[in-house]
Amino acid sequence: MNMKSDSAMRPKILVTVDVVLLTVDLESSLSDGLRVGLIRRDAAPYKGALALPGGYVHPEEDENTAAAACRVLKTKAGKAVRYLEQLATFSGPSRDPRGWSVSVCYVALEDRETMKQWPADLLARVDALPPLAFDHATLIGAAVERLRNKASYSALPVFLLPDTFTLSELQDLYGRLLGTPLDKSSFRRKVRELGFVEEVPGAFKGGQNRPAQLYRAKEMTTFDRTI
Amino acid sequence: MNMKSDSAMRPKILVTVDVVLLTVDLESSLSDGLRVGLIRRDAAPYKGALALPGGYVHPEEDENTAAAACRVLKTKAGKAVRYLEQLATFSGPSRDPRGWSVSVCYVALEDRETMKQWPADLLARVDALPPLAFDHATLIGAAVERLRNKASYSALPVFLLPDTFTLSELQDLYGRLLGTPLDKSSFRRKVRELGFVEEVPGAFKGGQNRPAQLYRAKEMTTFDRTI
Repeated sequence: MNMKSDSAMRPKILVTVDVVLLTVDLESSLSDGLRVGLIRRDAAPYKGALALPGGYVHPEEDENTAAAACRVLKTKAGKAVRYLEQLATFSGPSRDPRGWSVSVCYVALEDRETMKQWPADLLARVDALPPLAFDHATLIGAAVERLRNKASYSALPVFLLPDTFTLSELQDLYGRLLGTPLDKSSFRRKVRELGFVEEVPGAFKGGQNRPAQLYRAKEMTTFDRTI
Repeated sequence: MNMKSDSAMRPKILVTVDVVLLTVDLESSLSDGLRVGLIRRDAAPYKGALALPGGYVHPEEDENTAAAACRVLKTKAGKAVRYLEQLATFSGPSRDPRGWSVSVCYVALEDRETMKQWPADLLARVDALPPLAFDHATLIGAAVERLRNKASYSALPVFLLPDTFTLSELQDLYGRLLGTPLDKSSFRRKVRELGFVEEVPGAFKGGQNRPAQLYRAKEMTTFDRTI
């Protein structure tokens, strides 16, 4: 059949997914505290090198590339996904020594507490990355740029905090992502205007003298599993 | 060799690109004037149906998927690209009857004058799309959403205008994309603040009585051909 022979003639392209799993360590005084979760490759190419969690798309089981990204995080890192967003697709003849390849790259966000399960030596500062396999340093750069851009107009960064947090922690987070300390009163006014957090009734954090009200995200940004 | 047999065992995934070519007809009083350039498919599947310009990635000649998108526009539509941006990648077992497929989708922008070369019956209103092949209506919806979102914070829409334009035309365009008529003086203040257009010295448009100053984009947004 025509379609079949056309398909048989086309050279094979490698189709993979990679996940840039980001977290922020609010206790860190080193730069912005942004960290990325890496793995150590156990097979060629780049065997033994640090890399993003990633792998081939499995057409017999993956519903789409987002599902492949979730599967990869689960199997390579034992990690369920809290927030996942498609970043961009990287492609070309040279980025993978096995051949012409396409990698659909995702950004996942996680809070620091949960990421304490990640091996500490595989949680790298994004501003001081170790040598990485493939073009993974480029993918991380693009993911961090996306996160910083979104920090200026969306509630997305709340996925980097635990389920409940104080407004000071939220302000610290946005200040780190935007690269500049924020004014307390204008930040709080902005948060009220955007209306994406709400008080957790009766929940406070801190000492007896001035306990801080705890907040939670009001309505988490929906997370599109179709792409 | 191990790598080779692993690669031979993996089921084949179809890798394609699709381009959502958008323009705005500022003379149209029908809705927002947004139009998308379509082609009529000359081969199965969906032979004879309307579709986005698209096609297989050719690893032997394409440097990356962006280059494939440029090639597709050139060969399927005789069209050089003025502005191209990667939108998102759509994938899954059901979107193409030939098998599990990945389509890296791009948005291209063009001014209405140039698009007059496109066959008029293949330039569809985005708010009244005809039946389309594959999931192409979904791709168009995502492209229009991206364009509208960017209208609120970037100079990107200038790619929908000819090289020179009046401030009234620019205001009309942004108003159409944002879905609301804009106030003249606050729009002009905003444009001055953003500083992305400049006067074309001595160039005016319109009648003898009140000719309007022509403007041009100061520095076109760079266009990343690496993804």
